[in-house]
Amino acid sequence: MADTGWPGCAKSLKGVVLDMCGVLYDSGEGDGVAIPGSIEAVEKLKASDLQLRFCTNETQATREKFVAKLQRLGFDISVSEVFSPAPAAVAVLKEKGLRPHLLVYDGVLPEFDSVDKTDPNCVVIGDAAENFSYQNVNEAFRVLIGLEKPLLFSLGQGRYYKETDGLKLDVGVYMKALEYACDLEAEVIGKPSSMFFQSVLNDMGLHPHEALMIGDDLVNDVGGAQRCGMKGVQVRTGKYRPTDERHPTVTADGTVDNLAQSVDVILNQRGH
Amino acid sequence: MADTGWPGCAKSLKGVVLDMCGVLYDSGEGDGVAIPGSIEAVEKLKASDLQLRFCTNETQATREKFVAKLQRLGFDISVSEVFSPAPAAVAVLKEKGLRPHLLVYDGVLPEFDSVDKTDPNCVVIGDAAENFSYQNVNEAFRVLIGLEKPLLFSLGQGRYYKETDGLKLDVGVYMKALEYACDLEAEVIGKPSSMFFQSVLNDMGLHPHEALMIGDDLVNDVGGAQRCGMKGVQVRTGKYRPTDERHPTVTADGTVDNLAQSVDVILNQRGH
Repeated sequence: MADTGWPGCAKSLKGVVLDMCGVLYDSGEGDGVAIPGSIEAVEKLKASDLQLRFCTNETQATREKFVAKLQRLGFDISVSEVFSPAPAAVAVLKEKGLRPHLLVYDGVLPEFDSVDKTDPNCVVIGDAAENFSYQNVNEAFRVLIGLEKPLLFSLGQGRYYKETDGLKLDVGVYMKALEYACDLEAEVIGKPSSMFFQSVLNDMGLHPHEALMIGDDLVNDVGGAQRCGMKGVQVRTGKYRPTDERHPTVTADGTVDNLAQSVDVILNQRGH
Repeated sequence: MADTGWPGCAKSLKGVVLDMCGVLYDSGEGDGVAIPGSIEAVEKLKASDLQLRFCTNETQATREKFVAKLQRLGFDISVSEVFSPAPAAVAVLKEKGLRPHLLVYDGVLPEFDSVDKTDPNCVVIGDAAENFSYQNVNEAFRVLIGLEKPLLFSLGQGRYYKETDGLKLDVGVYMKALEYACDLEAEVIGKPSSMFFQSVLNDMGLHPHEALMIGDDLVNDVGGAQRCGMKGVQVRTGKYRPTDERHPTVTADGTVDNLAQSVDVILNQRGH
């Protein structure tokens, strides 16, 4: 435990977790574009002795469709390596015997095929985009306020994201709306929830201090991973902003130009 | 100043301010229905030496249309006696030279006819109901986030209200959504804002301690008036709930069955 800081900590790592959008690729028209060097960086990690997982808050498509897009971009990646909020929510719902009212994007609905949705006793919201109509939000509200113990799950808590036609409100905004309407606190499934990072660690069979998260979102990727006991490194791609490097509450263990650079530093430290 | 409590304080009152929905009438199909005794109670107040004003957070219609509805129900009331958030907002906008992007109910738009809305430098939201589509909320968000100093005005901060077909989300829910999206705090125009109550007091030419607010909403009517230095009495009609009488932060100066009873108590105290 001599080297606990970045990059010295890389020597004792056993696993790496990668955020996807903004780290592997930039979204945009069609499939978007791979960030230069990222395809090769993933290949290098896979050839190393480190375990590798991918962790995204993407909730507009099923994992299958999302992974197929990444494969088309050239990434060596499979569904079993990817952690996203919808399957995590399904696990929570089944474990607790909950029947959700869903307010999500149409593309992610198949993830919930195996869940009983009759006579709902909780509400699950995702990045529903245009499905966040007044009528649909009001319907979710009526379900919640009609429950003896209102229970709201939010697949992430993002404020907004960027698409080719401009900024778009993300799920966190509607989470706050329903929290206020019903005077409750939602349970977030996805980053930055510790439970979500822990499920990735469990899958790798690692302790938090043995794993490193690499992401472009300082609060949700880096801060979330750190709160869980993992190391967190930020890349200067995707939604990175220079002000992140003097953030009032979250300080990354390291900041690197991009995924390619971070992987080279890690493998160098490990003597590759 | 011997009798500062309720109902003793009625002796030294110079003005009374009445909430409308839930105090004068219950909304519902068509115009709704007058609450028994309220029409006569307003008549008694008008025949007394007390000044009288009406104060509502209604923002789905112009004051003219709203007052016409009350007149049809049998109330002796005129537009100049009614204070509502939209005209108050227009006054603020003009005073500060602000050009709003409006996200409001179509019926209230004429209130803003005299306001310059080109090249907006602030956003005003009201109880827009079905107009709170994802596209419209996102558009308001984009205006805000594009401003050097984002400025959001909210006409009230209600969570929800009841219509004949069930509960409906109110403007406060979308205020919280935009606050979170843009990391800002909205300025509330309407109850419970002290500025709003003060404008009613200014119109009567009274000091706060000379006026009493009567409403069914403990937090927005009673609490708002009290924070402004007025007395506040709650009626057990409209949205009153028994739990209001043991609310953790707001305690009404008095609680009465309805407007008719409160007016009889006030006038009795004054020796009528």
